Amino acid sequence: MQENNFNVNPHSLKTAVSRVEKDKIVTRGYNQRDLIEKIRYSDMIFLLLRGRLPTLKEARIFNHVLVSFCDHGVTPPSTQTARLIASSGSPLNSAVAGALLSFGHKHAGAIEKTMELYQSKISTARLIDDPDIDNKQIASLAIEVYKDYVLKGKKVPGFGHRYHSTDPRADKLIEMAIKEGFIGPHLKLALAIQDLVFEKKNIKLNVDGANAAILSDLGFDPELGLGVFIIGRVPGIIAHIHEEKMDEEEFRRFCDLDDIEYVGGR
Amino acid sequence: MQENNFNVNPHSLKTAVSRVEKDKIVTRGYNQRDLIEKIRYSDMIFLLLRGRLPTLKEARIFNHVLVSFCDHGVTPPSTQTARLIASSGSPLNSAVAGALLSFGHKHAGAIEKTMELYQSKISTARLIDDPDIDNKQIASLAIEVYKDYVLKGKKVPGFGHRYHSTDPRADKLIEMAIKEGFIGPHLKLALAIQDLVFEKKNIKLNVDGANAAILSDLGFDPELGLGVFIIGRVPGIIAHIHEEKMDEEEFRRFCDLDDIEYVGGR
Amino acid sequence: MQENNFNVNPHSLKTAVSRVEKDKIVTRGYNQRDLIEKIRYSDMIFLLLRGRLPTLKEARIFNHVLVSFCDHGVTPPSTQTARLIASSGSPLNSAVAGALLSFGHKHAGAIEKTMELYQSKISTARLIDDPDIDNKQIASLAIEVYKDYVLKGKKVPGFGHRYHSTDPRADKLIEMAIKEGFIGPHLKLALAIQDLVFEKKNIKLNVDGANAAILSDLGFDPELGLGVFIIGRVPGIIAHIHEEKMDEEEFRRFCDLDDIEYVGGR
Amino acid sequence: MQENNFNVNPHSLKTAVSRVEKDKIVTRGYNQRDLIEKIRYSDMIFLLLRGRLPTLKEARIFNHVLVSFCDHGVTPPSTQTARLIASSGSPLNSAVAGALLSFGHKHAGAIEKTMELYQSKISTARLIDDPDIDNKQIASLAIEVYKDYVLKGKKVPGFGHRYHSTDPRADKLIEMAIKEGFIGPHLKLALAIQDLVFEKKNIKLNVDGANAAILSDLGFDPELGLGVFIIGRVPGIIAHIHEEKMDEEEFRRFCDLDDIEYVGGR
Repeated sequence: MQENNFNVNPHSLKTAVSRVEKDKIVTRGYNQRDLIEKIRYSDMIFLLLRGRLPTLKEARIFNHVLVSFCDHGVTPPSTQTARLIASSGSPLNSAVAGALLSFGHKHAGAIEKTMELYQSKISTARLIDDPDIDNKQIASLAIEVYKDYVLKGKKVPGFGHRYHSTDPRADKLIEMAIKEGFIGPHLKLALAIQDLVFEKKNIKLNVDGANAAILSDLGFDPELGLGVFIIGRVPGIIAHIHEEKMDEEEFRRFCDLDDIEYVGGR
Repeated sequence: MQENNFNVNPHSLKTAVSRVEKDKIVTRGYNQRDLIEKIRYSDMIFLLLRGRLPTLKEARIFNHVLVSFCDHGVTPPSTQTARLIASSGSPLNSAVAGALLSFGHKHAGAIEKTMELYQSKISTARLIDDPDIDNKQIASLAIEVYKDYVLKGKKVPGFGHRYHSTDPRADKLIEMAIKEGFIGPHLKLALAIQDLVFEKKNIKLNVDGANAAILSDLGFDPELGLGVFIIGRVPGIIAHIHEEKMDEEEFRRFCDLDDIEYVGGR
Repeated sequence: MQENNFNVNPHSLKTAVSRVEKDKIVTRGYNQRDLIEKIRYSDMIFLLLRGRLPTLKEARIFNHVLVSFCDHGVTPPSTQTARLIASSGSPLNSAVAGALLSFGHKHAGAIEKTMELYQSKISTARLIDDPDIDNKQIASLAIEVYKDYVLKGKKVPGFGHRYHSTDPRADKLIEMAIKEGFIGPHLKLALAIQDLVFEKKNIKLNVDGANAAILSDLGFDPELGLGVFIIGRVPGIIAHIHEEKMDEEEFRRFCDLDDIEYVGGR
Repeated sequence: MQENNFNVNPHSLKTAVSRVEKDKIVTRGYNQRDLIEKIRYSDMIFLLLRGRLPTLKEARIFNHVLVSFCDHGVTPPSTQTARLIASSGSPLNSAVAGALLSFGHKHAGAIEKTMELYQSKISTARLIDDPDIDNKQIASLAIEVYKDYVLKGKKVPGFGHRYHSTDPRADKLIEMAIKEGFIGPHLKLALAIQDLVFEKKNIKLNVDGANAAILSDLGFDPELGLGVFIIGRVPGIIAHIHEEKMDEEEFRRFCDLDDIEYVGGR
């Protein structure tokens, strides 16, 4: 038996997110009355996830990140899942939940994996060398990544897109980061990798790759990369679900008998 | 047989949310490059759900609404569900999905039901009387609601809170709407109902009730009320999931053998 | 404030399903050691849901019901949802969960609605007339249903199928119920309705309609009708998910750019 | 760009599970009319997952496996999740979906991990030595596992239980396998590991460990181990959800203000 007693601790839950008392709610140390009055919703998200308010510069770039995830039409499996579920007559929250379940490692997993790659490279460099990473160090980290992936025939996470040769969201995000002076070591690394990969394979950073770098520079854990993606994408998914429920009468089929080939017995 | 042919229509999907083409994404008529550069995330949400950008006044109040839904600590069933699932070792997106499934008619359903009530009253009044509803009409609609619910011993949707006698979020939202001159007929009706209900039952509008009125004045469908609530609450749920995954080693049990009474056979 | 205190009751959970103690589990009054050794899995399901073991006759027909729900290929939205989620790289349990979320009122909801219809008719007849309903009473109830639905141009729940003119599962279930002498008042009613509907509209009972009648005769609540459907269908869904994960490399798209028409601004 | 064209293949789906045509459904090569009439539900599950009908011996032990997963009261996180969601007023299918999302690697993941361990050991032994593995080989594999886990202070998957020193389900399953002559190499290995682990740590195989061995001897892939667990557990979860919906009026809280400690700012 792994445990000798069957009791749980009396204070079963500790949290640093919010304190609730009669007629008062405090979140991350701020009275919600003040938050409602004074802060932007994108800053509220930053506060919830990072535990502190963003600086002005951080707030600006984080807002770009959130907007950039908003929607990619009906093409992603998550949006198709949401519409399938909505069209079967399930409630809106069930359809959103189903969409989230499509964020597997092949779909939305890229952002987490890319953040892990960038952060492990940069933190190793910081441990070995001096904390202020210079361009020479960045270049040598980029070559490491290039060797580990491209030269071994492996897909570089955060690169390439099914529909775009230049992902317009990645392109604009990088442009904004440069314009607003928000270029940290992770984004420098991503751009250095892009130089090598583009020359060899003619593919560029996609929206996940650019955001993985920016969110890493903003101090987010890789797991929260998926979290930020979810936050950014949920409004678009809800727009699709609402459209489906308003417009469609019968339940949707994405394929029908003619599209199905039976390869089993007899 | 309900249908005589097995084929689906060739263009299986129509959407007004986004158009995707090579290297370009257009959402609600705007190039995403421009959206990423120029608009606030809360305005992006409005654009996705309402199909147009908000006015300055609308943008301000909609931002307050989004922030007000952010978090209520570990007390809601949805947050407890999220933490239970996270603590079992499931991925973050599964835990968020589980939380959304807790938004049943007893939990997050209030906002939708309240919006339906306010909107049906106001639209009926507009049909019968002149479109600019005056205070006298509002007062008579409030009395109708009072009779249909309070005098029949039924719970008025959007009123009262388990933990608060004055829900600080509702209170602040109403304060902001007044201060910023954003008082439409639905909020007027909600406040008129509050006057009657408070006198009789000593309970006030809760966060769902106040937001149901404001979102109705903003032109949202009742179903999208739940959608806005989900958008506002997901970041807080993600903060709780991340905390759970960082802090907790074993899987969580909210009750244990001592808390369970068996009432079955033998 | 709806409540004056913030405490929960000390025994937070009562259950008649199972009692767990050290080295012993009792379910519905039976020691699980005995259940594992002695009963069939289909009887175990009956025991869990109905609180008692089935008679031999009940066990036989309930087994037919469970098998009849097993699979309908890739055509249902739930199976397509499961495969979409599986193909995105999410774990098997997430894909099953997503499939369940597609069981909305347009898809799997029919069985519950049909059980409600049959049970309300039969229980009303029992209250008014003598409890042993005779064929004349059944005939008059069937005419009521015919008038309420067919003559008002409404779809009769439990009738017709997108792909079948004679649903082979319904046909076989009715054959088995007759052969094994398991014809209760609900199935009699369903067959009497079929006589009227078939003459007028040339459509017959589908698998949901036949099972709604049989499960009602077995004493199941309408809500558990959906439960039995889920139990019967989950193995098939898992077979599809496993197939998808084994065979498919990239994530699945049920539609692509050419299949999508943008109807929004600009 | 990863792909040069935007088209999907015309036959978008291949499946060996079922073929659907007008008035006829064939599953795994059998007409569903025959399956409904002739086979037990547990054999139907085997057929769906393994692609063939079980032998008599296989059918008997697989039935024990399914029954053994049926229910563990309100103690598992999945059951608590199901009841939380049900108590919020969400539909039954949403509550089942939520429960499935709790089957993370700490909860139901053990069975898959244990199957991987047993199968990798046995298949390696088969490659190196002759395919009929003798007891001496089993003993040496068990020692390998013992060294890799126990001597390195790691938890052996499939061993120990929070509430039981002898898991009554594992105990009975092993008893039945011996009595019915169904002892393959994977179960032999599990029992050999148990001898070593019990002597050192006083813990035994749990229900996941015993079933992981039996399902491996039945030829199931590790991923389908989780599938079989889900199939076996869903009926119990539905029983709990139905109980919750019948008995409970307000939404459930597993903890309340007194149980929560705020550890954040201010």
